[in-house]
Amino acid sequence: MTVRRKRNTAAAQALPVFPETSFEVVEAVLTGFVRREVERVGLRRVVLGLSGGVDSACAAAVAARALGAENVLGVMMPYHASSPASLRDAKSVARMLEIETATVDISAQIDAYFDSQSDVSKQRRGNKMARERMAILYDRSVVENALVLGTSNKTELLLGYGTLHGDMASALNPLGDLYKTQVWGLAARFGLPDRVVRKAPSADLWEGQTDEQELGFTYAEADTLLVRMVDERWTDAELARAGFAPDFVQRIRTRIRGSQFKRRSPLIAKVSERAVDADFRYARDWGT
Amino acid sequence: MTVRRKRNTAAAQALPVFPETSFEVVEAVLTGFVRREVERVGLRRVVLGLSGGVDSACAAAVAARALGAENVLGVMMPYHASSPASLRDAKSVARMLEIETATVDISAQIDAYFDSQSDVSKQRRGNKMARERMAILYDRSVVENALVLGTSNKTELLLGYGTLHGDMASALNPLGDLYKTQVWGLAARFGLPDRVVRKAPSADLWEGQTDEQELGFTYAEADTLLVRMVDERWTDAELARAGFAPDFVQRIRTRIRGSQFKRRSPLIAKVSERAVDADFRYARDWGT
Repeated sequence: MTVRRKRNTAAAQALPVFPETSFEVVEAVLTGFVRREVERVGLRRVVLGLSGGVDSACAAAVAARALGAENVLGVMMPYHASSPASLRDAKSVARMLEIETATVDISAQIDAYFDSQSDVSKQRRGNKMARERMAILYDRSVVENALVLGTSNKTELLLGYGTLHGDMASALNPLGDLYKTQVWGLAARFGLPDRVVRKAPSADLWEGQTDEQELGFTYAEADTLLVRMVDERWTDAELARAGFAPDFVQRIRTRIRGSQFKRRSPLIAKVSERAVDADFRYARDWGT
Repeated sequence: MTVRRKRNTAAAQALPVFPETSFEVVEAVLTGFVRREVERVGLRRVVLGLSGGVDSACAAAVAARALGAENVLGVMMPYHASSPASLRDAKSVARMLEIETATVDISAQIDAYFDSQSDVSKQRRGNKMARERMAILYDRSVVENALVLGTSNKTELLLGYGTLHGDMASALNPLGDLYKTQVWGLAARFGLPDRVVRKAPSADLWEGQTDEQELGFTYAEADTLLVRMVDERWTDAELARAGFAPDFVQRIRTRIRGSQFKRRSPLIAKVSERAVDADFRYARDWGT
């Protein structure tokens, strides 16, 4: 597994990021999931945004194995400030997987909205771009008679490191229960292009942006903690004993709590016997 | 309560739409909900799309009562094909409630996307417009330090009559557990402008569109059935005995089942002990 870890006192260095992950089993589960869920709604195809990064490359590889390459459309949606290298990487992924591609430049829409405004932060631009890409993928999914495939990994979902109703939106997400460092492992198994797997993760929202710089810690550091905190339910005392710095633990926990709203449906004021989401949410309610 | 019901054999005509609704209680619950949820995240303000229709007018009225009119921003987002009457109605609602407004024309963004495409259906245009409006509301919410207030009612949510990640997206939704016919009742209590309450409900996505024409039944018909089917859990035999036509019951049930994906988070392939949404979803998981 390709894992970069900076020497940093934040995480417990003696621990492996993961005890073990069988990527053979993971591949079987993910391809089965995509095939089953697409067929269950009577469809055969998926569309996904192909960014040139490792997450969308992995999601595309899963879908191509599950549905056949001819049933996967990778949509590249550059903005004029996006790195040309991202587009090249996305194309090399599509070529390798032999999936169909489409390119939709989003510059005109984004600029039309922001041009009359001053002092627009990078974050606002980035969120608007992520939501424009979501809207394009959902639009293409109608034309293609396909489902929108998500590419958010578990690290991003837990940290809330993504745009609600943007890149976090999808019909089904094969990677949402894999930490970023596990996505790297799966990418290695799939033999995805080295450039794509090895480059610094970035949302490519501005020149030189990298996820790890913006987050202030590495994915390896985050995942080493998250798997113990979330999956293995270690207590704070256990985490401290294993060498995790209490302020790092607190920082990650604050991010998880503060981003809960991104992982759930809108809050609805309940006034009846059976409110949508609060009560009317189980499979038995709609008989599937 | 203002309820229009066409003479139609679909629904059981002898039944009242609702046995009874105390709009005094409803108002208290909804304003308490908005105040509590906004304060709980340390904010004071909300933004919402003001369409000129009764749902957004009601949601704005609830928010103005809950937070004070000065803490509600109504954003009008016309497209060049939108009815000028809608904008006038939205302004009259804002004037009456004394809330602040902003107007953002979405024509340039929408046309930039569709102009190079032929054979674009009304539905595709409508969905893209709804998602552009969502993206603008979320963007404004950052600038305003506010939450996005939803305006979908229970009838729309159950029938899936709305755009996923478009008008169905919000941080909190005061109307989501009120059927459309109850929204009319609440609007009457609030004394909202007659024109707004009495006009034919429409998403205003194209000239002359009305919801009831598009749905093929009236809101009164749908709600009369939905409240018995969903809230009171009548069996098919009980519905038939009360006079509901079996094909109408089946048609509504098919819509509820087919739109379940719009009421839930993306499906995530589970490979770990605690997957987001499947397992990691309860308040105890993030300690609030």
